[in-house]
Amino acid sequence: MLTVTAYAAPSATAPLVKTTIERRELGPADVLIDVKYSGICHSDIHTVRGEWGPIQYPQVVGHEIVGIVSAVGSDVSLHQVGDRVGVGCMVNSCRECENCLAGEEQYCLRGNTGTYASVDRDGTITQGGYATHIVVVEDFVLKVPESIPFEAAAPLLCAGITTYSPLAHWKAGPGRKVAVVGMGGLGHMAVKIAHAMGAEVTVLSQSLSKQEDGLRLGADHYYATSDPATFETLANTFDLIINSVSASIDINAYLSLLRLDGTLVSVGAPPEPLPVQVFSLFGNRRSFAGSGIGSIHETQEMLDFCAEHGIAPETELVAADYINEAYERVLASDVRYRFVIDVATMA
Amino acid sequence: MLTVTAYAAPSATAPLVKTTIERRELGPADVLIDVKYSGICHSDIHTVRGEWGPIQYPQVVGHEIVGIVSAVGSDVSLHQVGDRVGVGCMVNSCRECENCLAGEEQYCLRGNTGTYASVDRDGTITQGGYATHIVVVEDFVLKVPESIPFEAAAPLLCAGITTYSPLAHWKAGPGRKVAVVGMGGLGHMAVKIAHAMGAEVTVLSQSLSKQEDGLRLGADHYYATSDPATFETLANTFDLIINSVSASIDINAYLSLLRLDGTLVSVGAPPEPLPVQVFSLFGNRRSFAGSGIGSIHETQEMLDFCAEHGIAPETELVAADYINEAYERVLASDVRYRFVIDVATMA
Repeated sequence: MLTVTAYAAPSATAPLVKTTIERRELGPADVLIDVKYSGICHSDIHTVRGEWGPIQYPQVVGHEIVGIVSAVGSDVSLHQVGDRVGVGCMVNSCRECENCLAGEEQYCLRGNTGTYASVDRDGTITQGGYATHIVVVEDFVLKVPESIPFEAAAPLLCAGITTYSPLAHWKAGPGRKVAVVGMGGLGHMAVKIAHAMGAEVTVLSQSLSKQEDGLRLGADHYYATSDPATFETLANTFDLIINSVSASIDINAYLSLLRLDGTLVSVGAPPEPLPVQVFSLFGNRRSFAGSGIGSIHETQEMLDFCAEHGIAPETELVAADYINEAYERVLASDVRYRFVIDVATMA
Repeated sequence: MLTVTAYAAPSATAPLVKTTIERRELGPADVLIDVKYSGICHSDIHTVRGEWGPIQYPQVVGHEIVGIVSAVGSDVSLHQVGDRVGVGCMVNSCRECENCLAGEEQYCLRGNTGTYASVDRDGTITQGGYATHIVVVEDFVLKVPESIPFEAAAPLLCAGITTYSPLAHWKAGPGRKVAVVGMGGLGHMAVKIAHAMGAEVTVLSQSLSKQEDGLRLGADHYYATSDPATFETLANTFDLIINSVSASIDINAYLSLLRLDGTLVSVGAPPEPLPVQVFSLFGNRRSFAGSGIGSIHETQEMLDFCAEHGIAPETELVAADYINEAYERVLASDVRYRFVIDVATMA
């Protein structure tokens, strides 16, 4: 066992504290990663606070991880010591179900093994990336292209793939009108990626406070959803709407913005159900869909796409002892657009 | 003006009565149809009873109409006197909007002109097919192939196209698992069409009371949704679910039956919204969609498909003076599977 430094939640209500945790000894297929940067995702907060269900404590979260390979198991062939690598939201899957065999292991029918708060194959609870080291089976480790600034690469492993996957699946590209609901960690990446794919991009945000940023990041249009005129002006407009907001929204109002055969994809999920008027779906043969992260194969494709197009998240680098304050700022939407922990400050 | 015999609703609460209505004089592009058979659709009942909003009375309904062309306007080129023709749920559209120009006039952005209870171009309210004659602009008139029994052809104009369109759009066919929710007028047609398209068809019905019919009409499997084990057995199974039920259903339970990239399409719509758990959509990247009838082009395609595959609805032929009793039996789900009015009995 390897004892490593980490920041863990001792309970659902206490702040995260510096502590040590155990990582497993390297198995033949495992890679040991010297973690350099770890992004802070809103999901981390939901999880440690038990808002998505009870968890065991202490719990280390973090699923936007980049670092350098510092050791490899005897059978590892995909990575070498010294490689720049990343780990996202999952670290394993059953590898046997229909979806795993189709290369869509994020939808593993037995549930993929989450990077944190998930039951691992050895029965232990997985511990995430707010730590100096992590051990992960090689085929769930991504290669981070040299051209992506290392600290900015971290949020690509969740915010990047979560938006890239539906944009690619529902064919954002030239001639397609794409709206992004919400200009947070996920939303700002959706804007950059959809723009790079060649789509005409519109941001739908509560206010115009981030309009300048939105246009700079690649949006062609920016509307405030607090203005009812927005929904009249944009009726029947979009081929694809990516909803990055986890709070409840007036789903039927947003559905009315879809043109013929348009799809609204939620990548954020409120805990309460959304009341869908089926008549909202009849018009224009609309669809309401969900999408969760992306496959390992697609995550690598996304990293390579971002490298090729010079895309990276806008980040604010923080020290480890700032995590609890960062959480409060995430909850207050006071971050442009993703906190990244400099893991060197954990030493 | 042409005075013709019809059955009309005098108010939201009174039974339909025999009366006369006026049809417009034939314009250059119009076709006069001598109506032979007219199907009874659940929508007719919702409409005349004001359940979908207030309407003007007296109102003649009926949008599953077949008959023989008895006169044509001076510019008509698509149809000739003596032709077997049909009219479905719409008799016009704006012909100028994006969707009309795309050949999807059922989704006309200004609203297509419904066959009944809709404002026509001349400002009058359209009157439907429970009548001895109807006048319709030629390009909203379909050709009914000779090989389809005439009385059975009528329900194809609504029940047929409403189920054919989503089955074709979402690619029911060999290797695809399709479920049909509900074994009524629409559902039994969905079973026949999906089977003819080559899909593996499962019926999901409240009970097993129509199981024998379902299997005879082409279903490979038949399950009762009143049995909770059904939802466990069939989890993650279907590529496509056609929901033909207009009553409220437990939408999240049905969504859980979709496999990777599966879509649940509602062609029936309850008046109240359905509470969709977004987490139900995340798993398997599921979609919840709506579909309304089909285009004129696609309706012709459906009629030709049904002729080619020898498909027709199961009907019960009734006299015009039986309409009110038929309505009560439709509401009691006591029809296998579609009432068709023999319009000769109106004379």
